[in-house]
Amino acid sequence: MPTSKEAPSDADTISHKLMSRAGLIDKTSSGVYTYLPAGYRVLRKVEDIVRKEMNRTGAIEILMPALQPANLWKESGRLDKMGEEMIRFTDRHKRLMLFGPTHEEVVTDIVRKNYNSWKQLPVILYQIQTKFRDEMRPRFGIVRSREFLMKDAYSFEMNEEGLDISYGKMKEAYKNIFSGCGLDFSIQQADSGVIGGKFSEEFVAKGECPELEVGHIFKLGTQYSESMKAFFVDRNGEEKPFIMGCYGIGVSRIVAAAIEGNYDEKGIIWPVSIAPFKVIVIPANTENSQMLETAEKLYKSFTDSNIEVLLDDRNESAGSKFADADLCGIPLWVIVGRKITEGKAEIRIRRGRKSEDVETGRVIEWVSDFLNR
Amino acid sequence: MPTSKEAPSDADTISHKLMSRAGLIDKTSSGVYTYLPAGYRVLRKVEDIVRKEMNRTGAIEILMPALQPANLWKESGRLDKMGEEMIRFTDRHKRLMLFGPTHEEVVTDIVRKNYNSWKQLPVILYQIQTKFRDEMRPRFGIVRSREFLMKDAYSFEMNEEGLDISYGKMKEAYKNIFSGCGLDFSIQQADSGVIGGKFSEEFVAKGECPELEVGHIFKLGTQYSESMKAFFVDRNGEEKPFIMGCYGIGVSRIVAAAIEGNYDEKGIIWPVSIAPFKVIVIPANTENSQMLETAEKLYKSFTDSNIEVLLDDRNESAGSKFADADLCGIPLWVIVGRKITEGKAEIRIRRGRKSEDVETGRVIEWVSDFLNR
Repeated sequence: MPTSKEAPSDADTISHKLMSRAGLIDKTSSGVYTYLPAGYRVLRKVEDIVRKEMNRTGAIEILMPALQPANLWKESGRLDKMGEEMIRFTDRHKRLMLFGPTHEEVVTDIVRKNYNSWKQLPVILYQIQTKFRDEMRPRFGIVRSREFLMKDAYSFEMNEEGLDISYGKMKEAYKNIFSGCGLDFSIQQADSGVIGGKFSEEFVAKGECPELEVGHIFKLGTQYSESMKAFFVDRNGEEKPFIMGCYGIGVSRIVAAAIEGNYDEKGIIWPVSIAPFKVIVIPANTENSQMLETAEKLYKSFTDSNIEVLLDDRNESAGSKFADADLCGIPLWVIVGRKITEGKAEIRIRRGRKSEDVETGRVIEWVSDFLNR
Repeated sequence: MPTSKEAPSDADTISHKLMSRAGLIDKTSSGVYTYLPAGYRVLRKVEDIVRKEMNRTGAIEILMPALQPANLWKESGRLDKMGEEMIRFTDRHKRLMLFGPTHEEVVTDIVRKNYNSWKQLPVILYQIQTKFRDEMRPRFGIVRSREFLMKDAYSFEMNEEGLDISYGKMKEAYKNIFSGCGLDFSIQQADSGVIGGKFSEEFVAKGECPELEVGHIFKLGTQYSESMKAFFVDRNGEEKPFIMGCYGIGVSRIVAAAIEGNYDEKGIIWPVSIAPFKVIVIPANTENSQMLETAEKLYKSFTDSNIEVLLDDRNESAGSKFADADLCGIPLWVIVGRKITEGKAEIRIRRGRKSEDVETGRVIEWVSDFLNR
């Protein structure tokens, strides 16, 4: 976690500044970032929350290719509608290929080949996958970037009532996901844009960042199934186009949105659910062998108890270590300082900055109770 | 799991045939595949085995961008060495970008910006990430495809001894990974090709597929750190280039290799560790309510015991359900058939096709014992 006191000069939002300063991301090129170890841990936690809620709706996970043949987009009629932000290239065999910003065409192709009866419906397929977009003006760090992680889900139904049910399930799942990641959000009726369809709503996270849509759900109807001839046989033996919905979440955007809604002047205040580590153990002075050894023992006990923990055993001043712990937003700190002579460590809660002296033998129990609450 | 009796006409290896027939993958375009639900489950299991072994070596997970600026490749001198299989495009601001087939340049850039002292070494960074390659002749299904999942790791050391240690750790981890995924493999000294460096070994899985390299590890030395000016300060205060190693695994290739080494004339025989489901419950006749209800109860008990289970409650003949279970390679079958009148189900082991009649009340225990062995 390479921290720094200064944010890069192009950092234009609080989340961009804090993600850079806390060593969560590293810029490779304009709008192109690496997730460093702590940033990657947060991303995975968000991904796992998304996956859990998707699975609860009965949606099934697959993995579609980012690389798509332009042919499919000709079928749907979307090829000419897409702007320059869609990355296209001609392959070695002179076929036009593209990096798909969404997957309505690919998933409709899968369903028309593999599903043909009302008995197999409804089906909801989803994936968590990297998307590419050649943004005119990449901004706000990972928020408007050229490479990002998305969850996209697609539902296929035999009638409008089915679509309403799946759409409702997804909307509930989205509420659980965004609340679960510590976001304060609102739901707004929205323009369906190039995705199409007749009704859509977007989930907007509160914060300073002017961009921050984190989710968008669409009732598509038969736009793709009709143009791509994706039909099933209904109860009466008649051929009908599938009734579709699609449901997107900006998985990497949630990371930035969570920071926009959870920080103070000292740094990030991670919601416990997505914190890269739950606890940091800080020996106030590593040259004091009692402090260092106690800290190391506590670190091992946390590890043995499967509680994600960091040990800050750098030979730095307590003040500078506290400043880093503040910046990185670890929810619970266990400070092993002077009171160790009385057998006590200080537990500090990052959110609200409350402190409590706890006997070292009771630290793990105290923390476990806190995390289970 | 949309199964079929026929393999696609372009399927040229047993793994390609069986992955298509068992509904693990769906072809979107030449060399471009979707992982369908069961295929995706296998891929994730392989990924988790790779991740666990990487973490055990002390390597730290990050996520680098697939999108890379050509500038970095000019610095390393590799831009002109790469052939047409590297996908390049000019972005909206006329900058040359590429989809990185490997990440030596990006990771060296990260390390030169964030590490500068021998005290921070060694460091091993790794990622599990989708790679793209515009293959001249995509073949063998997911083996020589245009989009695939790789694990790539990079080690940075202060001296050659350090490199030897990290290289040795990686080699051990690779053995554990391939054995853990049920592969029979050999290790061969190899040509380092366009990656460079002075010594490399490749891991070759046994099977009919003429391609099937599943891993390749390299002692790179200072080739990238010197050309890209990635230096650290050593114990004596002198600036030195990092000594590097790099270590790749074809994560998606492991899936195909596992099939090449584990099948019979009826279908796949999944190693238990990477099977999409551990158990399938098959009511021989779904119109017999005692069979169906017992099967449903067993299915629920497995789910409650966190044992990954499928229920084949299709109204098909027992024979055709057995054929699908054989094809899909589920390790353990629980068949609820005629002996249900005596309170017994049949447990069949896919590998070796041994059978045993077990009282329905003891089925979960029997299976748990088998899986824990």
